[in-house]
Amino acid sequence: MAHPTLVIDNLQYANWSQKIFQQMNEGGVSAVHVTIAYHEQFRETVANMKAWNLWFEQFPDLIFQGFDAKDVERAREEGRTAIFFGFQNPSPMEDDIGLIEILHRLGGRFMQLSYNNQSFLATGCYEDEDPGITRFGKQAIAEMNRVGMVIDMSHSAERSTLEAIELSTRPIAITHANPHAWHPALRNKSDAVLKALTQAGGMLGFSLYPHHLKGGTDCTLESFCGAIADAAQAYGAEHLGIGSDLCQDQPDSVVTWMRNGRWSKETDYGEGSASNAGFPPQPGWFRDNRDFGNISKGLVNVGFSEKEIAGIMGENWLRFYRQAFSPI
Amino acid sequence: MAHPTLVIDNLQYANWSQKIFQQMNEGGVSAVHVTIAYHEQFRETVANMKAWNLWFEQFPDLIFQGFDAKDVERAREEGRTAIFFGFQNPSPMEDDIGLIEILHRLGGRFMQLSYNNQSFLATGCYEDEDPGITRFGKQAIAEMNRVGMVIDMSHSAERSTLEAIELSTRPIAITHANPHAWHPALRNKSDAVLKALTQAGGMLGFSLYPHHLKGGTDCTLESFCGAIADAAQAYGAEHLGIGSDLCQDQPDSVVTWMRNGRWSKETDYGEGSASNAGFPPQPGWFRDNRDFGNISKGLVNVGFSEKEIAGIMGENWLRFYRQAFSPI
Repeated sequence: MAHPTLVIDNLQYANWSQKIFQQMNEGGVSAVHVTIAYHEQFRETVANMKAWNLWFEQFPDLIFQGFDAKDVERAREEGRTAIFFGFQNPSPMEDDIGLIEILHRLGGRFMQLSYNNQSFLATGCYEDEDPGITRFGKQAIAEMNRVGMVIDMSHSAERSTLEAIELSTRPIAITHANPHAWHPALRNKSDAVLKALTQAGGMLGFSLYPHHLKGGTDCTLESFCGAIADAAQAYGAEHLGIGSDLCQDQPDSVVTWMRNGRWSKETDYGEGSASNAGFPPQPGWFRDNRDFGNISKGLVNVGFSEKEIAGIMGENWLRFYRQAFSPI
Repeated sequence: MAHPTLVIDNLQYANWSQKIFQQMNEGGVSAVHVTIAYHEQFRETVANMKAWNLWFEQFPDLIFQGFDAKDVERAREEGRTAIFFGFQNPSPMEDDIGLIEILHRLGGRFMQLSYNNQSFLATGCYEDEDPGITRFGKQAIAEMNRVGMVIDMSHSAERSTLEAIELSTRPIAITHANPHAWHPALRNKSDAVLKALTQAGGMLGFSLYPHHLKGGTDCTLESFCGAIADAAQAYGAEHLGIGSDLCQDQPDSVVTWMRNGRWSKETDYGEGSASNAGFPPQPGWFRDNRDFGNISKGLVNVGFSEKEIAGIMGENWLRFYRQAFSPI
């Protein structure tokens, strides 16, 4: 059954299962950008793609792999969910610029230039210093522009992000973060970044990960939708979407892996702390893929028009996918 | 036949052959630190180790693998050459701090924290900006200190080098570079770096790679030995040695690999240029391993004592090896 309205969630990293794919279906979610690499190198990323291929084979009524915007339209018509691959770190390309095109051919559509730490390409938001885009980074941006892989700066540091926006000839994305002005978490983005991002045609995906929310798990739907309304005022509603960062059903060992990879012998707690090391619980109004309707209602209540809501819930990402995923 | 005086060359990257091992023997070279990785990742580095294992098996009268300072003494007594492995980039450890101990166990004794570009750990000398040692870099330095792998900053940028000297609890090395004051190449080292390095007990290996020499290929032996004399005056002769950077018999394709690795689709010419892209010819007084005697004579002529010359030609590196190669 076709989905009545278009819903795209532009970032999830769940412990995938038939149950979750079924919930995507129940929630009428036509496309999800899923993280398939945090620290995985190329061969490990391919192994994660193989796992997805098995799920595509097992659950064809629920999900299939998305490669371009048309797949979102098809998913909506057929009442299924198109799954788009992305990487939260450039680790899948390792030290090899030639792997960008290979990863794009395999379906990689978003790649963060850095994840919390310094990468070969750019600086992460947990480093003390941010020298901006490196020599390799400049070449990688040009290559990502060429093949149609979206530059994602969600976990990158300020200067690197501003330079990536400037250097990229195509609009970039911050797939999952919120405005720093609303909730001053290290991962949330400054007004300067959001201005530059949106003025260059880029997209911001609002995150529902509790560490990014004002009040954390206790954040209200009103507060969240109010932040979207403020951002719409400042940057234009057409540049906003959802990137929920939903990490459903993940054991806490996974957030330890996300934060520590293979680089740390000590334990890095990232946005958490020693006494609050695990995944934080979701707010009651956004537990999983069945709750996008709550957000739509919340957006009505803060005064958005029907058209603006349709944009934020999916049409804006769809427009971006149309522009972003093809080679130049 | 035992070598009459101790000669250690603390950096070579030749196109290895029986001829070269024979020349080491003729030149009375008791130890060579050989580069076995420029951009190679772990598995590729292991492949290079296997190639060395074959040479060790084929030419046991000439070479064997060195693991500690005692192997240098044994090589000298037996008239052979102890080969110590090193990496010009942290690429062999990839993104994995646990690989430092593995690489040390396999014989890795020197590792540069960066090679020209930004690495996960530190900045290379060709980047425009140098943010210093990264989060991962701080942990890698502590781990290298723990297991006894020497931090080498030959191709690193200024601030990163100063911070590495400061952060490391053990003396570090600049295995192959010259004073910037003598020849202001990008790769040569500032007075501030050389002061900090030597005051912390570190070693500088003088390079004979023409791009690091005043006058390039035409550099005179007098000028080279004069630079060593000036450095001895400024920093103490006991902190100086040779790290020739001899790239004997390498095809020019290798210098292209050294400069471009897998990161660049354009051609980076490094210290060369489009019109001078290949390996530069060696000065006539240092063609290969048979010419260390010329340097000894040149050091006599600029007024060094016998003891100082013995130090520079090998004893200083031997002392450093004794301190540096064992776990804490």
